[in-house]
Amino acid sequence: MSDQTEPIQVLVDRLARLPGLGPRSARRITLHLLKRRNATMREVIEALRTAAEAVRPCSVCGSLDTRDPCGICQDPKRDVRALCVVEDVADVWALERARAFSGRYHVLGGTLNALDGVGPEDLTVETLVQRAAEHGVQEVILALSATVDGQVTAHYVAERLGGIDVRVTRLAQGVPIGGELDYLDEGTLGAALAARRAFDGADPL
Amino acid sequence: MSDQTEPIQVLVDRLARLPGLGPRSARRITLHLLKRRNATMREVIEALRTAAEAVRPCSVCGSLDTRDPCGICQDPKRDVRALCVVEDVADVWALERARAFSGRYHVLGGTLNALDGVGPEDLTVETLVQRAAEHGVQEVILALSATVDGQVTAHYVAERLGGIDVRVTRLAQGVPIGGELDYLDEGTLGAALAARRAFDGADPL
Repeated sequence: MSDQTEPIQVLVDRLARLPGLGPRSARRITLHLLKRRNATMREVIEALRTAAEAVRPCSVCGSLDTRDPCGICQDPKRDVRALCVVEDVADVWALERARAFSGRYHVLGGTLNALDGVGPEDLTVETLVQRAAEHGVQEVILALSATVDGQVTAHYVAERLGGIDVRVTRLAQGVPIGGELDYLDEGTLGAALAARRAFDGADPL
Repeated sequence: MSDQTEPIQVLVDRLARLPGLGPRSARRITLHLLKRRNATMREVIEALRTAAEAVRPCSVCGSLDTRDPCGICQDPKRDVRALCVVEDVADVWALERARAFSGRYHVLGGTLNALDGVGPEDLTVETLVQRAAEHGVQEVILALSATVDGQVTAHYVAERLGGIDVRVTRLAQGVPIGGELDYLDEGTLGAALAARRAFDGADPL
């Protein structure tokens, strides 16, 4: 590309820094868009602008929505008894796609990590403690990653919730649906074995 | 995602349709941007807008640039004797990155393909014939893909250039730099053997 094409190069550079993209995929997307300047490209710009203007963090749970409090926090049909603690907004989206949870969420904003300098004050633990103490909340589900950081954070959060009269639970660990035993790591196999349940004939699929 | 988050869903859908992206990567990028609404996201929108407004096809060669004729066509330092015929703007970018060619380009806009209904009238063959006949042009290099469509197109273009006093050449076929023989297909190996050259000790790397 010659240096006269600076706006193209700027666009490629910006796109290449997005997660999952690199120079090659950014160039491909840039060219795809430039060839469709009056249709696809305008639509993408419009979608970005609308989202940038309309979407904001929910002051209650920390998720992202066009309303504050967010649609889930405002929804009278959601079960106020259960509070599901997740690391990130992406986890809220994943759980909502699974349609497996009808309570409300609390986005921590990450996990504790001493090396990266992420301490409790960087997460929304304080607000979580307040929300957990609210009238009606009976259970706090720690839906954190099954990683060292996730579990360290889960322990810390559970400790902070110690004085409050709520049941603190965590996600089950075991064989993922569709998982083949000989491809599973030993940790998962061990956890699945230790948490084995009576066979009731119900098909998990 | 609840239906209150429509601008988010619209953005995910739009991004998911871009080449190389899918719902998962589109969600990841969307979230990345929404968390950086006032920095990265604004920059990406601005880069898209600037490019959409400033970039247009070059009326001479068919490449994309902020100027028309494009920077390459206008550049007095480019060799007017050689014209490099490529399928797509992406190929111009690739050749420019390789810094291997100092002449000018001609973007065909695709390859002939009877099944997809792409005929000569859909490509810029007519303009190419005119440009090839211009004063000073001595060589037309057919830098088309080494695919069936690319080679069919190369033959057609060469035939159309038949009456004009220019040398028509094509890219060499052979072992790609860094390529290991036992991973190469038979076609490439055969072509490389047939086009073997005297060993002059010059290192291709």
